[in-house]
Amino acid sequence: MSETRIVTFTTDFGLSDAFAGIMHGVVLNIHPETSIVDISHAVASYDLLDGAWTIAQAYRYFPPRTVHVVVVDPGVGGKRRPILAETDDYIFVAPDNGVLTLVEAREPKFTVRHITSERYLLQPVSQTFHGRDIFSPVAGWLSKGIGPAEFGPEISDYVRLPLPAVEHIGANSLRGAVLKVDKFGNLITNLGGQEAPALFAASLPKVSILISDQTITRLCHSYAEGKEGEIFAILGSSGYLEIAARQASAAEKLGAAVGTPVGIVLGE
Amino acid sequence: MSETRIVTFTTDFGLSDAFAGIMHGVVLNIHPETSIVDISHAVASYDLLDGAWTIAQAYRYFPPRTVHVVVVDPGVGGKRRPILAETDDYIFVAPDNGVLTLVEAREPKFTVRHITSERYLLQPVSQTFHGRDIFSPVAGWLSKGIGPAEFGPEISDYVRLPLPAVEHIGANSLRGAVLKVDKFGNLITNLGGQEAPALFAASLPKVSILISDQTITRLCHSYAEGKEGEIFAILGSSGYLEIAARQASAAEKLGAAVGTPVGIVLGE
Amino acid sequence: MSETRIVTFTTDFGLSDAFAGIMHGVVLNIHPETSIVDISHAVASYDLLDGAWTIAQAYRYFPPRTVHVVVVDPGVGGKRRPILAETDDYIFVAPDNGVLTLVEAREPKFTVRHITSERYLLQPVSQTFHGRDIFSPVAGWLSKGIGPAEFGPEISDYVRLPLPAVEHIGANSLRGAVLKVDKFGNLITNLGGQEAPALFAASLPKVSILISDQTITRLCHSYAEGKEGEIFAILGSSGYLEIAARQASAAEKLGAAVGTPVGIVLGE
Repeated sequence: MSETRIVTFTTDFGLSDAFAGIMHGVVLNIHPETSIVDISHAVASYDLLDGAWTIAQAYRYFPPRTVHVVVVDPGVGGKRRPILAETDDYIFVAPDNGVLTLVEAREPKFTVRHITSERYLLQPVSQTFHGRDIFSPVAGWLSKGIGPAEFGPEISDYVRLPLPAVEHIGANSLRGAVLKVDKFGNLITNLGGQEAPALFAASLPKVSILISDQTITRLCHSYAEGKEGEIFAILGSSGYLEIAARQASAAEKLGAAVGTPVGIVLGE
Repeated sequence: MSETRIVTFTTDFGLSDAFAGIMHGVVLNIHPETSIVDISHAVASYDLLDGAWTIAQAYRYFPPRTVHVVVVDPGVGGKRRPILAETDDYIFVAPDNGVLTLVEAREPKFTVRHITSERYLLQPVSQTFHGRDIFSPVAGWLSKGIGPAEFGPEISDYVRLPLPAVEHIGANSLRGAVLKVDKFGNLITNLGGQEAPALFAASLPKVSILISDQTITRLCHSYAEGKEGEIFAILGSSGYLEIAARQASAAEKLGAAVGTPVGIVLGE
Repeated sequence: MSETRIVTFTTDFGLSDAFAGIMHGVVLNIHPETSIVDISHAVASYDLLDGAWTIAQAYRYFPPRTVHVVVVDPGVGGKRRPILAETDDYIFVAPDNGVLTLVEAREPKFTVRHITSERYLLQPVSQTFHGRDIFSPVAGWLSKGIGPAEFGPEISDYVRLPLPAVEHIGANSLRGAVLKVDKFGNLITNLGGQEAPALFAASLPKVSILISDQTITRLCHSYAEGKEGEIFAILGSSGYLEIAARQASAAEKLGAAVGTPVGIVLGE
């Protein structure tokens, strides 16, 4: 119980209110030695897929036994359950609405519990801020060393999020979509090593990428390879195909956003 | 002197400059073991009421003996005094301009000192960044265990902020105002359990709420109870009446903002 | 090796993605006891001068032995080298693109090493996110006590950034430029104590400041001295001449931005 424990937060609460700071306070009030990291509070409001993507990109870079709190919670105060999920190395605390689906997709072990034990919650529990009253105190007690089984029974009927489909159109063609636009305007697609293994082969393949009425044929290793003003594709640090522009926003140049379809034709 | 101490920051400095990071550095340079939490740096520029509201919402969630630094300071470099205030559980460091008024309103004990002891300040003290040169070093020394009495004499003529009035219009009618718009566009009013106890009774009362030429009669327990597109009222996690819309911005839908009048008529 | 060590981050990554959180994770995964401070993630995208200014303003407020990570990195994945720089009190980790130029200008000792030791990097090193794969793990190992010499050989041909010139026009005239606009709209120039010592004399000098077709003759000690609506000059907390307006944005009032020329004529 005496080792350093880390708690992280991934939410859509923004930084313009005191929400994030209050959650830090609740954790520290239970266990002042906890080290807290904000992964992001800028998940798009109510956007479960964006939350699922954000935590899936980040969680593996933290030390084993880190407690990851994920709160994107359009159903707060309704019937959705609060849950706790364990993988081999991490514990997740979140609403049961699918926001952990992309974590589950990456992990061999994924055990979920329904948080039912009232004694670990902040009383009285409000109907509007479970980040403060349920998820943060549970994370605080976990960081203090309380075992996951203390919080409630295992369940198997937890919610999974439907993910944007990747369609196979013939042997060498795929259709996916933009999953995320980052701060620099890079367009991150849902086409990764699992969906399009040929893209991620040892040597870069020939490929045509169709997006917003443009065809991109240049696949680069790095942003620095791109020429001034050029739009190109790259196999990004996230493990997915990205569309980028050198020191400019590909999203703006292409008028593309989350959900914009992306077609790829290999070997042309 | 060896326990874990927490210092929090609530300011209008934003995150686009290095101001917040510099203040962390000043505290850590005095006491590297301090744990620092940013409650918010997004208080509206120069807005004492917004700062007062933000710290009042957050401070009680932190462990006893936490030092809360609040810097909204339009009079920096002028004659306003730097102060230190003690409640039963917390210490506050702030300019003497009323930004602690809503904390004082919630606390039985509120003892204020004028910070006069030059030895605990960062020399030379600038005329423009007292967050760095006065408030952060005082917080650093407090977190290291220096007692409040070391910083200066007790005073009683500290500044109190005039608060937006709640008017009683007949037995069942009140007029208040919007105090805060949160990140989701929820409108938080100044009508709480003290101002309108009937609203916060065990069972939800009948009520008509007038705002921006609309009348709202639906009072919900949670956001999830609201219907798609509907505007409704809720007794929020802050302890005040809020006007909300399901997964949408009530502020936008109503064209309302901080200061917009809110009338309530009970029992209709 | 057991003392508290601090790692700071200054980047242009923003807070809308998980980039900053991931870098915290990488450091903590190597050394969970590290205390991490975000100086700013809001450096203007790809803007080396803005990054150089931000870290130069902040680094000296941290305890000796702090490791400062600075990632503004338009050339990521190209040929630019990752470097580590030592001053008397601090260690800096950054791309070799001049982003440490304003630190070097303030320090008697500035020793630079090319980071070549693969064993301290996160493998496989991506071509697009060296903040995660190179700079953060190097900072993590430094905070754990690995000596700078372990990371690679000393070099002397590191990159220096060309700085906006200060021109002397006659004995009492100078021409500089706006270097930074802060959150409040204050215009911070590149005219400091070194460039214009007469400005920073014990008593405020007579001066005419020309910017955006206006002439400013009022030099104040503090923002509070300025009158409502007035535009005035001030010797700011950064050690440079600033143009400010009382509780308003001088940038907006003057239509000025980074790069806007600023002339000063002393003694008039």
